[in-house]
Amino acid sequence: MNESLKAVVLAVGSEMLTPTRTDTNSLYITEVLNGLGIDLAYKAVVGDDRGEIGAAIAQALDRHRILILTGGLGPTDDDLTREVVAAHLQLPLDENSAIVEAIRARFAARGIAMPEVNRRQAMVPRGATVIENPRGSAPGLLIERDDRIVALLPGPPREMRPMMSGPIAERLARVAGGRRLLRRALRIAGRSESRVDEQVSAIYRPWQAAQPRIDTTILASPGFIELHLSAQVTDMVAGKDALDRAVAALERELGADVVNATGAPLEQTVGEMLRARRWRIALAESCTGGLATSRLTDIAGSSDYVERSWVVYSNEAKRDLLGVPDEMLTQHGAVSEPVARALAEGALTRSGADIAIGITGIAGPGGGSDQKPVGMVWIAVARREPRDTDATVCRFLGGREMVKTFAAVTAVDLVRRRLIGAPWDIDWIWRR
Amino acid sequence: MNESLKAVVLAVGSEMLTPTRTDTNSLYITEVLNGLGIDLAYKAVVGDDRGEIGAAIAQALDRHRILILTGGLGPTDDDLTREVVAAHLQLPLDENSAIVEAIRARFAARGIAMPEVNRRQAMVPRGATVIENPRGSAPGLLIERDDRIVALLPGPPREMRPMMSGPIAERLARVAGGRRLLRRALRIAGRSESRVDEQVSAIYRPWQAAQPRIDTTILASPGFIELHLSAQVTDMVAGKDALDRAVAALERELGADVVNATGAPLEQTVGEMLRARRWRIALAESCTGGLATSRLTDIAGSSDYVERSWVVYSNEAKRDLLGVPDEMLTQHGAVSEPVARALAEGALTRSGADIAIGITGIAGPGGGSDQKPVGMVWIAVARREPRDTDATVCRFLGGREMVKTFAAVTAVDLVRRRLIGAPWDIDWIWRR
Repeated sequence: MNESLKAVVLAVGSEMLTPTRTDTNSLYITEVLNGLGIDLAYKAVVGDDRGEIGAAIAQALDRHRILILTGGLGPTDDDLTREVVAAHLQLPLDENSAIVEAIRARFAARGIAMPEVNRRQAMVPRGATVIENPRGSAPGLLIERDDRIVALLPGPPREMRPMMSGPIAERLARVAGGRRLLRRALRIAGRSESRVDEQVSAIYRPWQAAQPRIDTTILASPGFIELHLSAQVTDMVAGKDALDRAVAALERELGADVVNATGAPLEQTVGEMLRARRWRIALAESCTGGLATSRLTDIAGSSDYVERSWVVYSNEAKRDLLGVPDEMLTQHGAVSEPVARALAEGALTRSGADIAIGITGIAGPGGGSDQKPVGMVWIAVARREPRDTDATVCRFLGGREMVKTFAAVTAVDLVRRRLIGAPWDIDWIWRR
Repeated sequence: MNESLKAVVLAVGSEMLTPTRTDTNSLYITEVLNGLGIDLAYKAVVGDDRGEIGAAIAQALDRHRILILTGGLGPTDDDLTREVVAAHLQLPLDENSAIVEAIRARFAARGIAMPEVNRRQAMVPRGATVIENPRGSAPGLLIERDDRIVALLPGPPREMRPMMSGPIAERLARVAGGRRLLRRALRIAGRSESRVDEQVSAIYRPWQAAQPRIDTTILASPGFIELHLSAQVTDMVAGKDALDRAVAALERELGADVVNATGAPLEQTVGEMLRARRWRIALAESCTGGLATSRLTDIAGSSDYVERSWVVYSNEAKRDLLGVPDEMLTQHGAVSEPVARALAEGALTRSGADIAIGITGIAGPGGGSDQKPVGMVWIAVARREPRDTDATVCRFLGGREMVKTFAAVTAVDLVRRRLIGAPWDIDWIWRR
């Protein structure tokens, strides 16, 4: 096995050279490559420019055996990847009639004729392996030339990912030999990144010197912390065993803050808990504008337990649809504990659900005050059997979309905590 | 003036070649460069590896006049940027006593002696301009050699940014002359990428040879196409005028498919249209699970026009909350034209809104049939004055989240089309 087997990842597209967009495909590709024991030599982003793409390909293949390109496989004039790779490798491009037919069928399914420009997507460098794209019109291409392996993948992540983790990874695994990267991910809610690190760094630090060595990374996203563990192993059984013990040690320390040890979305974990009890959920959302319900329904099969929701942005809607009394709105304001409770209880009594969420807060940027600043959100959870309601106030930092996301995630996590009987002492809660 | 003046941005650091971290400094640097009329040729990330850094520097300076490096200026053995740049440019490194003293003073302020390793940070390639770093120990460096300009900036954004926007930008402004990069973005809905390109490529292609030259990029995201125009100009008035005319030509050709010429989100444009009429909107969402309402409420100030919404996932919810008759659900199924119409009309009569959306479809992956496949979504829009309802059926391709996103975007776009009196003949519609 070649210890210095390294790959280059090249993203093609002028939009990724602007101040607002960047290449993220390389992160997924890196993960797959690392899983095969292959590191990156470097990665680069080039615009839709023949000269720059050509120079980047030459530079990569001059020094390294593996080159993964994404983007520039579309049907238009500025999609140049196929052409420039073929020219560099001195391979002629042939039109592949099976691809033309597949693209034609895709358009036909929508009742439209294939635009002639899409024929470009059927051009294949001679000798290349075509990788089907069930999610888009541009197929992937795998070219082997001398001892070089060049993969051309479409830019849209949902089209690129299955190709990278499937046929490309299979081919590269044979080049890379028997190493495997094992990974685990713990999803943690209700704690800040530094709080989690303080709590567990003494546990994971010694693993760096252990055999097999386990690397730990902490990632923060709105409402969550993820702890990623990874180990490069040749002995799969010993490796899995070591990771199992590592995960168990972290779970013991972090307790109810661990949502799951699979890395699955919170909404999936909570959905499975609801399904196991045959419980259904209803939501009354104000500041989150339907985001909590939308996230719950991102999970396949969620129609089993998501019963109904209301988005009650106006005071009239809160009154008419959920029975929040006018006097309560006048006396306490729409963003208040009584209104959050009334929303959750109103949702429970106006549905067949077993548990209900009420959310009311100030998403910003306007509408804040000293007493009720932007980011202040009241969340209530009401349960049918035994009947009770709990409420808490949070203060989330960030812009409008961040506050919405934090509030939606936290509301669903509070349902999880309620279902397992865990306390609600989460980090971003204002003490009353 | 050199028409092809382009810059290369190179981030140095192995941590940015992992699956979880990426370089973001380049976005800020790009913004500053674009503001001076300088485009990026390409950008790259290299690890802390002498050979890779050296090859990347050679590649950049071989083809381009400006190279901005970030990172690799720390005090440890794996901080290699200074050394490798100096070696490539054949400049000896001298210890700069003023820098040593500044670093020593920084440590002294915290009551500690300067570690000897920090002397590395005081090594300066002969002839380089030293850029003070009030926020950290590594100074920036600006090297001019022949007609090349090489900037070495620290990796931490708060240290890098003031150097880039200050001394580096000042120096580059003199190289760039009076050029400025002007940009425009058209947001287009209801058409596929290839359809848009077919329609307008004859219009934009000649602009590549025009004076000023206008570059056009087409970007696709779920439910949208964006057309980005950019021009490097010295005469701002003439440049703006040329872009205005270009945008107008595209708008004439694309008609009602142009959502806006500002690049603003669809939901903001539709929100402004509703606000201008003092109209309010209500939504009854089934398969989108609240996503359409959530997207509308991502816009600050949307509480002015988003009145209320229902997420009616279950048949009982459709019946109880919006009055969809049981017989209709039995006879036509929940995913049908009558139910979409009944949802929109129910939302209108049960709210103070002036316009309402009804959405019902099959998000998948389960629940599809030959007659009603996954991705089939009925969307209805009901208007109060004059009272009417229109409905259409769409077939969206992709997984669950894609179908939800397409359906939510299309529903809001159909409101826009209704408001401007445009036809509903969008691309992803099944002909009835």
